[in-house]
Amino acid sequence: MGTSLLSAPVIASRQRGDRVTGQPRFHWEDFPVGETVEFGNHRVTAADIVAFAAEFDPQPFHLDDNAAKATLLGGLAASGWHTCAIMMRMLCDGYVLDSASMGAPGLDEVRWLKPVRPGDVLRIRRTCVESRPSRSRPEMGLTRFTWDMYNQAGDHLMTATGTNMLGRRDPGRDA
Amino acid sequence: MGTSLLSAPVIASRQRGDRVTGQPRFHWEDFPVGETVEFGNHRVTAADIVAFAAEFDPQPFHLDDNAAKATLLGGLAASGWHTCAIMMRMLCDGYVLDSASMGAPGLDEVRWLKPVRPGDVLRIRRTCVESRPSRSRPEMGLTRFTWDMYNQAGDHLMTATGTNMLGRRDPGRDA
Repeated sequence: MGTSLLSAPVIASRQRGDRVTGQPRFHWEDFPVGETVEFGNHRVTAADIVAFAAEFDPQPFHLDDNAAKATLLGGLAASGWHTCAIMMRMLCDGYVLDSASMGAPGLDEVRWLKPVRPGDVLRIRRTCVESRPSRSRPEMGLTRFTWDMYNQAGDHLMTATGTNMLGRRDPGRDA
Repeated sequence: MGTSLLSAPVIASRQRGDRVTGQPRFHWEDFPVGETVEFGNHRVTAADIVAFAAEFDPQPFHLDDNAAKATLLGGLAASGWHTCAIMMRMLCDGYVLDSASMGAPGLDEVRWLKPVRPGDVLRIRRTCVESRPSRSRPEMGLTRFTWDMYNQAGDHLMTATGTNMLGRRDPGRDA
């Protein structure tokens, strides 16, 4: 349990925009239940927040700091859907693009715990909570993760639980 | 129960990009449990799919039709997070921007049932599944919805359940 950022340098060193070629580094077998890994260093800007909101969630508290001050959010904050999209980018850069990813069936839960603000620098703590081979596809396994998002102050901003479908290194052999 | 698109012309006629001024039309009291409303007419393009994926979910099956053909998706398909973001825009245009929206605490479940393809024209069926006043804020109520997304062929593409926080028309009076 408990792999820190420092002990996972390859994961941590992936940069936004890198693409992966060749064989995936990670298969379904490489995500043991209970493992925790941290990664990411994603800075959010006001321009990012407003651009996403203008396209997908144009509520005043995601578009304008003054309008947001009068609301529960107390100031400009990212759409929860933007926060999810940023998380996905961080998951891609953290492990998904290095993995035998086959997609995802959905999410079990998302909680937006605190606002994501301009200037926040985000990181993710990934915990593997369940792992099982696919019943219908011997080449695939399903891995359920909880992804917790924090900012530079250690504030817990979001928790989400969902499933990744991953190719198996040894298809048809139960772990 | 069951308000069709045709019987909800005000909701259905909202256009992408419209902004709302003045008093909200809908408060917490206006979303009775069991009510079903349909709205939306959102066309997805390949360019939309690739642009979102390039920024937030750059897996090959969201970026390139040929790469996607060899995968479970069988061809270019939108990121599930993009599908969620599009849904949020449709919710905004369908009722959220006309409502006393106070934000959202999270989602209970999201299932990506079928791929969202270039050319799909999306609609949403919203069902109110639960409604309760806030315990801590007399001016607020919480309404849980299930949002189901369909394409022009009637394929059920996504189901999601989440909660909207809404201002009450009559603060502090239990419905």
